[in-house]
Amino acid sequence: MVSKNIIKTEKKNKDVLNINLTEMPLVKDLRGSLTFGEFSKTVPFHVKRYFIVYDVPNQHIRGEHAHHKCHQFLICLKGNCRIMLDDGNNSKTFKLIEPTKGLHIAPMIWATQFEHSKDAVLLVFASDFYDANDYIRDYKEFKKLCTL
Amino acid sequence: MVSKNIIKTEKKNKDVLNINLTEMPLVKDLRGSLTFGEFSKTVPFHVKRYFIVYDVPNQHIRGEHAHHKCHQFLICLKGNCRIMLDDGNNSKTFKLIEPTKGLHIAPMIWATQFEHSKDAVLLVFASDFYDANDYIRDYKEFKKLCTL
Repeated sequence: MVSKNIIKTEKKNKDVLNINLTEMPLVKDLRGSLTFGEFSKTVPFHVKRYFIVYDVPNQHIRGEHAHHKCHQFLICLKGNCRIMLDDGNNSKTFKLIEPTKGLHIAPMIWATQFEHSKDAVLLVFASDFYDANDYIRDYKEFKKLCTL
Repeated sequence: MVSKNIIKTEKKNKDVLNINLTEMPLVKDLRGSLTFGEFSKTVPFHVKRYFIVYDVPNQHIRGEHAHHKCHQFLICLKGNCRIMLDDGNNSKTFKLIEPTKGLHIAPMIWATQFEHSKDAVLLVFASDFYDANDYIRDYKEFKKLCTL
């Protein structure tokens, strides 16, 4: 099913081969560890929403969609999981294993989360409030939009 | 030491006895659990920064300060910890044990984190970028400011 074209899709999508993890600062001392990020700076967009994904059974896959406009930034705070990004031409898989590593997913990148460890806690920052119309959930539609 | 009065302290501080945990939505199904919050909505301020505190040795105490202007919102994503809030007159202690419970700490509330479990991961949202001048680290100074 092709979603309604209410939301203008980002014209130019990023080449996933050029995407790398963002290293966040770490302050570690006898009192423990602290890592931080600033919105519109280290997290490269203005953040309006967060969500946290946890207790994911290992065999399950989450995500599997792209966004027309929304930017996301993923950090695995505990445990680990894998994220596969696909720009319509190439794919690249990242293993998120520590709270000091962030993954920026720009609009028009198909993302799939998988192989969550039992204790995995995934924090996601989003540039927009939830909008069902911003999701592209059909891969064929995504591929078609990539060629426009 | 009394900090420089560059930053205007919030005039009216909140009575901690009226502070309660914020319940965040939970979406739980066979694929796992998801909880979320929206900034300036469920998290009651515009968020500019996050930080994550983890690997805190159990005997250590963190926090122990108040802010002149900065709002904070705390969520314990894994494990648990205790937060004691003090408004200069009363104190109230919260145990944070799940990612669906948030604690809003307004300016001019003295906050102390303690009894972190070994696996505790504490996520904090802040309304301002880091500013050393916004911290009140001396309890006597805090008490004095409370009476102004």
